[in-house]
Amino acid sequence: MILIGERINGLFKDVRKAIQEKDPKPIQELAIKQAEAGAHYLDVNTGPAVDNPAEVMDWLVEVVQEVVDIPLSIDAAKMDAIEAGLKVHKNGRPIINSTTAEAKMLERALTLTKEYNALLIGLAMNEKGVPKDANSRCAIAMEIIAVADEFGIPTSDLFIDPLILPVGVAQDHAPEVLETISQIKTLADPPPKTVIGLSNVSQKAKHRELINRIFLVMSMGVGLDAAIVDVNDKDLMDAMATAKILLNQEIYAESYLEMSRR
Amino acid sequence: MILIGERINGLFKDVRKAIQEKDPKPIQELAIKQAEAGAHYLDVNTGPAVDNPAEVMDWLVEVVQEVVDIPLSIDAAKMDAIEAGLKVHKNGRPIINSTTAEAKMLERALTLTKEYNALLIGLAMNEKGVPKDANSRCAIAMEIIAVADEFGIPTSDLFIDPLILPVGVAQDHAPEVLETISQIKTLADPPPKTVIGLSNVSQKAKHRELINRIFLVMSMGVGLDAAIVDVNDKDLMDAMATAKILLNQEIYAESYLEMSRR
Repeated sequence: MILIGERINGLFKDVRKAIQEKDPKPIQELAIKQAEAGAHYLDVNTGPAVDNPAEVMDWLVEVVQEVVDIPLSIDAAKMDAIEAGLKVHKNGRPIINSTTAEAKMLERALTLTKEYNALLIGLAMNEKGVPKDANSRCAIAMEIIAVADEFGIPTSDLFIDPLILPVGVAQDHAPEVLETISQIKTLADPPPKTVIGLSNVSQKAKHRELINRIFLVMSMGVGLDAAIVDVNDKDLMDAMATAKILLNQEIYAESYLEMSRR
Repeated sequence: MILIGERINGLFKDVRKAIQEKDPKPIQELAIKQAEAGAHYLDVNTGPAVDNPAEVMDWLVEVVQEVVDIPLSIDAAKMDAIEAGLKVHKNGRPIINSTTAEAKMLERALTLTKEYNALLIGLAMNEKGVPKDANSRCAIAMEIIAVADEFGIPTSDLFIDPLILPVGVAQDHAPEVLETISQIKTLADPPPKTVIGLSNVSQKAKHRELINRIFLVMSMGVGLDAAIVDVNDKDLMDAMATAKILLNQEIYAESYLEMSRR
């Protein structure tokens, strides 16, 4: 499992405040804490409330890279903000997070992917929105794979995000997302990777951590490769370690759980 | 999810003692406790340490039926002991637990299934043992389905148990069991049900409850219909309730977890 730490996001109050005050310290602490907990990438998102997203992204990437050496997932709604982050990124190959299948956005994202030797998250949505059923989600994924191929981007550099919606808003999407994760593996050889933004499933729900944990485990059971998660959620990390054992992805030892904890 | 309570089994010390002393009280307490926790069936197994399994099974079924009115899963290695339980069973349709695909045993089990209007658990094993890969497990399941059909037993009255082995003994079996659960649904229309004896996955492991819980959730994610479990394990029941929500099998409400707890 590829773990992308979710915490450096302007949607969180502490990060928003640090961005507003240009205070690198809270952000650097979150970066270190997530890297120590085992994150392979750190997602970096300015949040929606900034006037100058490109400038803020540049600053965020710089301050994070001062304290950790793992690569970043540059996360923004606008490609200009993403490019600003890519320009200063230096810790290995960054992830572009993300593009839809909408032609203009996808082409820009693929151009950046190539130019910056990045990996790319493609969302299973287009200008019409997020379809409900797995087949339609896979059809959109296939479009992204095909256009990426025209750009000479290897399928193995693509992550497809089937887009899990909050269970309280669109409960019937959840099993379709599981089915999508399973089907995506059959779309190409080598297949693209799959990724989910886990916490989205439990937005506004009461038992957030439990819902997150159970959905992560079910997604891993059908083949999920990566997830944007709270790597500092200990119960989540224990559930993940156990799922890896049961999927035979890590060798079992009686003390597997203690060994997986850092 | 069909829940079969695992606790009335001579492998547990308290049950073994109660059987030896012919003391119905501890067994009846376990029966009530499991029924109250939401078990749909109660598994009843004399354990291996009795000289007269048929006689003990007769007694066990009688004492359990004095206090609960849910049907039982009559669980024994010998068909004579199972038949003794079936003879006195009166709470609806019992489950015969279980037969392998070995011809003589399977025929006897199917004869009893018909005679007592029972449901039947067929194990994905034959005289050669438990195969590792999903395809071989499914081939054995298919044999059971075919012979059951010759006996006029509807496929929907069959439960196939792919046989999960302890992760510490046969870790590479676990993903094959998940694959088997998923494939079994394609073997017939209507498909047989699938069932696992959950606790087996964690035998002799250190983090038993966590391993049980994670394997149950992954199995549900690929289509599991039933499980023999500790229905009094609250964390397991919470995990199951959450999985049902995420599989859209129960309608989500903010208080789903509280509503699922009895």
